[in-house]
Amino acid sequence: MTRGKLYGIGVGPGAPDLVTVRAVNQIKETEVIYAPFSKMTGKSVALSIIEPYIEPNSEIKTRTFAMNYDKAEKGEIWNDVVEEMVSDVRSGKTVAFISLGDSMLYSTWVSLLERLPKDIPVEITPGITSFSAIASLTHYPLAMEEESLKILACSAPIAEIENAISGKENLVLMKASIQFPEVYALLEKYHLLDQAILVSNASQSREKAVMQLSELSPSEKLSYFSTILINRSWKKSK
Amino acid sequence: MTRGKLYGIGVGPGAPDLVTVRAVNQIKETEVIYAPFSKMTGKSVALSIIEPYIEPNSEIKTRTFAMNYDKAEKGEIWNDVVEEMVSDVRSGKTVAFISLGDSMLYSTWVSLLERLPKDIPVEITPGITSFSAIASLTHYPLAMEEESLKILACSAPIAEIENAISGKENLVLMKASIQFPEVYALLEKYHLLDQAILVSNASQSREKAVMQLSELSPSEKLSYFSTILINRSWKKSK
Repeated sequence: MTRGKLYGIGVGPGAPDLVTVRAVNQIKETEVIYAPFSKMTGKSVALSIIEPYIEPNSEIKTRTFAMNYDKAEKGEIWNDVVEEMVSDVRSGKTVAFISLGDSMLYSTWVSLLERLPKDIPVEITPGITSFSAIASLTHYPLAMEEESLKILACSAPIAEIENAISGKENLVLMKASIQFPEVYALLEKYHLLDQAILVSNASQSREKAVMQLSELSPSEKLSYFSTILINRSWKKSK
Repeated sequence: MTRGKLYGIGVGPGAPDLVTVRAVNQIKETEVIYAPFSKMTGKSVALSIIEPYIEPNSEIKTRTFAMNYDKAEKGEIWNDVVEEMVSDVRSGKTVAFISLGDSMLYSTWVSLLERLPKDIPVEITPGITSFSAIASLTHYPLAMEEESLKILACSAPIAEIENAISGKENLVLMKASIQFPEVYALLEKYHLLDQAILVSNASQSREKAVMQLSELSPSEKLSYFSTILINRSWKKSK
């Protein structure tokens, strides 16, 4: 009996050449590609990244996972997409679900993965994270030696964000557009405005890097994919 | 006047196909490749990863950065390698320094970067981290939604490690071979032995994954490249 399989592929932060060789090979082999689609932006960033690698006869299915739905509604969408993918796999096809960045970090893919029946063969491929791309782009290291690095999203409670900012760890603050005025005030309070950096849409055509946050206004309208890095010991002047 | 340039390339955790397309292109273009060499293992893991992509006429210079030297001795080695690389770049060559994993996270490359004269053109390329590869391999997510993720090395003071283990964040504990009996005791104390996973040499031929730490003895002799992941909410049985 012929059986298909399912790839969960991380396609990196935006540049097509930041996709791994393994992901390129898997995409070329895939017959049905599922891609998350944003109604807000009217496109699929993940899909645009892998466009150069898609074979002409591959079928593309974009699916929308809205961000602010309630839990039940979210769960229903995840169940529907899992059902579709499982049906494609059971019909013998090679199927992929692509995720921006890494497939196992803040990715819709994980919500699908935990709903998959156990008999579906699944292979997961890691991707370059936005924060690794940002560190390379700006020559601003994430962590060295005995330093620790904490990653959190700015959708977290502000007390938790203050706890992180007032601490000793290096930080990655993802989704910086959420609560930016509050986060900006905290960076000011702890004298980190000129130590931190902010990058939007890393490695995409709309990429924008701000090396001194004091140049921004606290009311700045940021892109959804904005990330703040704080390395507490790095001297930017170097 | 012809000028060379310097690439700082992250080559990922071990599998040649977990190298990015950009890194492959840069390696093919590079005339002099600097690679860290371990006297302990007698080889360069980073170099073995990119072997399929090296052009036959590229020059390879392995350099040893011992781990336990004192600060002054370390600094001297870094200065020497920087001097060599700068000389190669100034002679007009395309030069690369390759790092295991990501180039900007716990990498010798950063110690070289901060010593480079400002007139040297530098381009840095991110790589897949070991923990992303481990999460994909084991189908064990790093973090979701409002969870935060903390990354630290087991060379940190044990009180700091206990503070992390007793906390609420998901964790990546790198270099798990250091202080493993102490870390094992902490995982036992906080009832995390069966929630955590441990992977050595992720995506390399010697890869080994342990999905239940209670199967290991606290005196287990681990490989240097061993990493523990703790996702506090993930149900492994799924």
